Amino acid sequence: MTESSPDVTRNGAHALIRTLVDAGVDTCFMNPGTSEMHFVAALDDVPEMHSVLALFEGVATGAADGYARIAERPAAVLLHLGPGLGNGLANLHNARRGQTPVVNIVGDHATYHAKYDAPLQSDIESIAKGVSGWIRSSTDAATVADDAADAVAASYGPPGQVATLVLPADVCWSESPGPVAPKPVPARARVDSSTIEAVAAVLRSGEPAALLLGGAAVREPGLVAGSRVAATSGAKFLSETFPSRLERGEGVPAIERLGYLAEFAQAQLGGLSHLVLVGATSPVSFFAYPDIASDLVPEGCTVHVLAAPGDDAVAALEDLAAALDAPADSAVLAGAFRPERPTGDLNAQTFAEAIGATLPEDVIVVDEGNTGGLFVAGFTGGAPRHDWLCLPGGAIGYGMPVATGAAIAAPGRKVLNLQADGSAMYTFQSLWTQVREDLDVITLILNNQSYAILNLELSRVGANPGPKALEMLDLTNPTIDFVALASGLGVDASRATTAEELTAQLESAFATRGPHLIEAILPPTL
Amino acid sequence: MTESSPDVTRNGAHALIRTLVDAGVDTCFMNPGTSEMHFVAALDDVPEMHSVLALFEGVATGAADGYARIAERPAAVLLHLGPGLGNGLANLHNARRGQTPVVNIVGDHATYHAKYDAPLQSDIESIAKGVSGWIRSSTDAATVADDAADAVAASYGPPGQVATLVLPADVCWSESPGPVAPKPVPARARVDSSTIEAVAAVLRSGEPAALLLGGAAVREPGLVAGSRVAATSGAKFLSETFPSRLERGEGVPAIERLGYLAEFAQAQLGGLSHLVLVGATSPVSFFAYPDIASDLVPEGCTVHVLAAPGDDAVAALEDLAAALDAPADSAVLAGAFRPERPTGDLNAQTFAEAIGATLPEDVIVVDEGNTGGLFVAGFTGGAPRHDWLCLPGGAIGYGMPVATGAAIAAPGRKVLNLQADGSAMYTFQSLWTQVREDLDVITLILNNQSYAILNLELSRVGANPGPKALEMLDLTNPTIDFVALASGLGVDASRATTAEELTAQLESAFATRGPHLIEAILPPTL
Repeated sequence: MTESSPDVTRNGAHALIRTLVDAGVDTCFMNPGTSEMHFVAALDDVPEMHSVLALFEGVATGAADGYARIAERPAAVLLHLGPGLGNGLANLHNARRGQTPVVNIVGDHATYHAKYDAPLQSDIESIAKGVSGWIRSSTDAATVADDAADAVAASYGPPGQVATLVLPADVCWSESPGPVAPKPVPARARVDSSTIEAVAAVLRSGEPAALLLGGAAVREPGLVAGSRVAATSGAKFLSETFPSRLERGEGVPAIERLGYLAEFAQAQLGGLSHLVLVGATSPVSFFAYPDIASDLVPEGCTVHVLAAPGDDAVAALEDLAAALDAPADSAVLAGAFRPERPTGDLNAQTFAEAIGATLPEDVIVVDEGNTGGLFVAGFTGGAPRHDWLCLPGGAIGYGMPVATGAAIAAPGRKVLNLQADGSAMYTFQSLWTQVREDLDVITLILNNQSYAILNLELSRVGANPGPKALEMLDLTNPTIDFVALASGLGVDASRATTAEELTAQLESAFATRGPHLIEAILPPTL
Repeated sequence: MTESSPDVTRNGAHALIRTLVDAGVDTCFMNPGTSEMHFVAALDDVPEMHSVLALFEGVATGAADGYARIAERPAAVLLHLGPGLGNGLANLHNARRGQTPVVNIVGDHATYHAKYDAPLQSDIESIAKGVSGWIRSSTDAATVADDAADAVAASYGPPGQVATLVLPADVCWSESPGPVAPKPVPARARVDSSTIEAVAAVLRSGEPAALLLGGAAVREPGLVAGSRVAATSGAKFLSETFPSRLERGEGVPAIERLGYLAEFAQAQLGGLSHLVLVGATSPVSFFAYPDIASDLVPEGCTVHVLAAPGDDAVAALEDLAAALDAPADSAVLAGAFRPERPTGDLNAQTFAEAIGATLPEDVIVVDEGNTGGLFVAGFTGGAPRHDWLCLPGGAIGYGMPVATGAAIAAPGRKVLNLQADGSAMYTFQSLWTQVREDLDVITLILNNQSYAILNLELSRVGANPGPKALEMLDLTNPTIDFVALASGLGVDASRATTAEELTAQLESAFATRGPHLIEAILPPTL
């Protein structure tokens, strides 16, 4: 039991929120509970903070990931105790793997209440540990603003990371001395000239080599410098499999993504003598399989690190291009190309053609299309320039939340979320927030009525499935009606069963402000 | 990389599943991924195992909770790596607090793959620790069957608990010597006679006393013995606030549940000199509030433990009744009572009356009605006998999954899920599994278009909310159409806007095999 709390403008919650805003964190995705009520009550006195309600915590954490990928600064998340953190954990895992800065605030019981082991008491730090590069429990309203400023700075890394601040209720409601100034954000480390020169020597050797770009290196400046290096040296130009944010399309240097399937990646890397990592980690198989190697680097290939994930990879590529005397105009830019408007049956190819034929400039594409979306990247490489957001962490259910957060970060841009049916059902509640915030998002459901990727994986792991096993991958009993689900959450929706219908519906959706959902009915297998 | 795996009937997954079935665990709720494909493939060769697919892990874990509450033996859960565990964590938290046995199997990468830190690599044990009374990582196909047998035995406690088995993919796919026999399940400890006599002496003193029953003590045998003790001694007869499974209705001894709000509970406990715990823990406030005590035991009241949660509380109550010479027929049984069929506007009272007027015998009621359902218990205490399942852990989103699992455990019984709108949206995917498994569940949505409980809590914590704060508790922008959502998942649904409509729709739903959903439109506040 504590004394009555002071006026809201003098409490810890107010100091915390004001400190966040002063440090540039002015968006908070939340699904609060009783222990967060003083935080919520303090929102009215900090008008700069945009508070966004989600119906489920996985939506809030994924939205923070999508927001920061586009805004290039963190959002805050407000979660309710250990169970709320659990609900948001999968998308925090994804943020961690994508090196996205997130200020993850987890409300807790009042400090003095913990010892009573009330029903919702849990060890929040043990749950948060695995996803958090930085973690702290606030203990006092006198220091919570300082904790918040530290959390914001820590979230930037480099590289970006989840900074988790555990926030007891009494720290929020007790009297605070007020906000504190932002803390300095450490810069990315400049790669030293001896490393540049060593890699330049490798590339000059003429032995088979590849650059493997990841993180911030796959934005346009890194791609231009990297492409100059590749064109001049003859090295292969590869990106990590699932970049957090890839710039691509007409006029941007094209880069070949490493395959998701180990066999494909091995083919791409086969015969190399040198692999140069630029903000990427050394390639490993996404999963383990009997008889397939986990380490994808071919035997006899030497791995060189030009830039570690926290280094300034773009500057390193520019320095490397200079060391190789790569001409300024030697980057190989993607030309304009659009497929014809497809006709006839809807399948993985005509689906991809419909997108390639209609994609306008400057769209943010959030790709959780999985198997059904396999051909989309190929048919959009020559479309007007756009951003392409992938799933670096592999925890499904990221697409709809990330699209939501990206749309909030870029109010003037259209977001296209390619969303596989099975994955959609993890965080479908996102649509409600898209309506509430009037977001310009097209959700394009790839409804193939199955966990098709698992059908593929089931055969790849060497299993020999019977009907009971196959039933666990099947989504036809019952079939999911995504148009009805969307309408239940207030989203205008349509269904496409032919290539012509999909093309027309996409054109219409691109021309109209969202949110909108299109359910594309695809065959159950590729 | 490992050698090719053996035929499925000789691998670790098969030995594990066969061992589970032999130990009485014949239902597995799952949402598997690539690392679990050998487990899935092995299902066909163990036909006794009922595998139930969920669209989201929180559905699977909550269903396992509901199943075990009714079946009185654990189900297994199969989750995919750390993120899948995170998605299922909230309902495992609830199972832990309700002392429900759950065999929680979390698939992991192959043992040798961990060191590569692949995208989905995470520290599963640190996430699982807080919810698990027992945890082990399997390391070898030679011993995985033994691990499984240990996990089943451990899940029984006593009291029941979550037993987490981390299951690497290569342990599943490698050659195993086969299943092992079940391990003995430890019995609940018998409370010694000196404890019985000490409590009897307290109750004989005539000083104001209360019994506080929890866990298995609130099933009929415990209630009968407890009611005899209370009637003979004059002690108050109380149960914990949110029992996991309470038997009640006509012919069952009625017991007064301790209030959720600290102020109510304090009023119930006020003036007591003795509080006797029978399978319950000492009462504490659910949340901390400024100026309200966390410990709800009044000053000057002595707490006595008749039976700790792992003890045989029912035998202890029977021994206590004998020590007090309580007559065998002295239990006070609830008489028959039904409210009139309500008419007019739908509100918290007419809503409760509609249920009280129509509830048939032997229904399993799963109560996540929150504020809108506040009066339902009062209007059903004299209805034909039924089970009442509550939320001991406080993590919302438990109702629909627990209803799903309860229906699988009791195919001949009707399940009525009282489901608040906000909480419904955490695990709404449950409806799909209800259709797939043809379950006899009525989901009754209490749609008051708000997080009404938080409106209540916001004022209780002493916060003074402005419009921005109130917006974070409001679910009207957009309103959720639960009938459309249900139809999207294949569930027959209807909407009730008057008391007459609700009564008629309930009668029809009770008379028809489910699943069915009724959306009751309630006013936004009590």
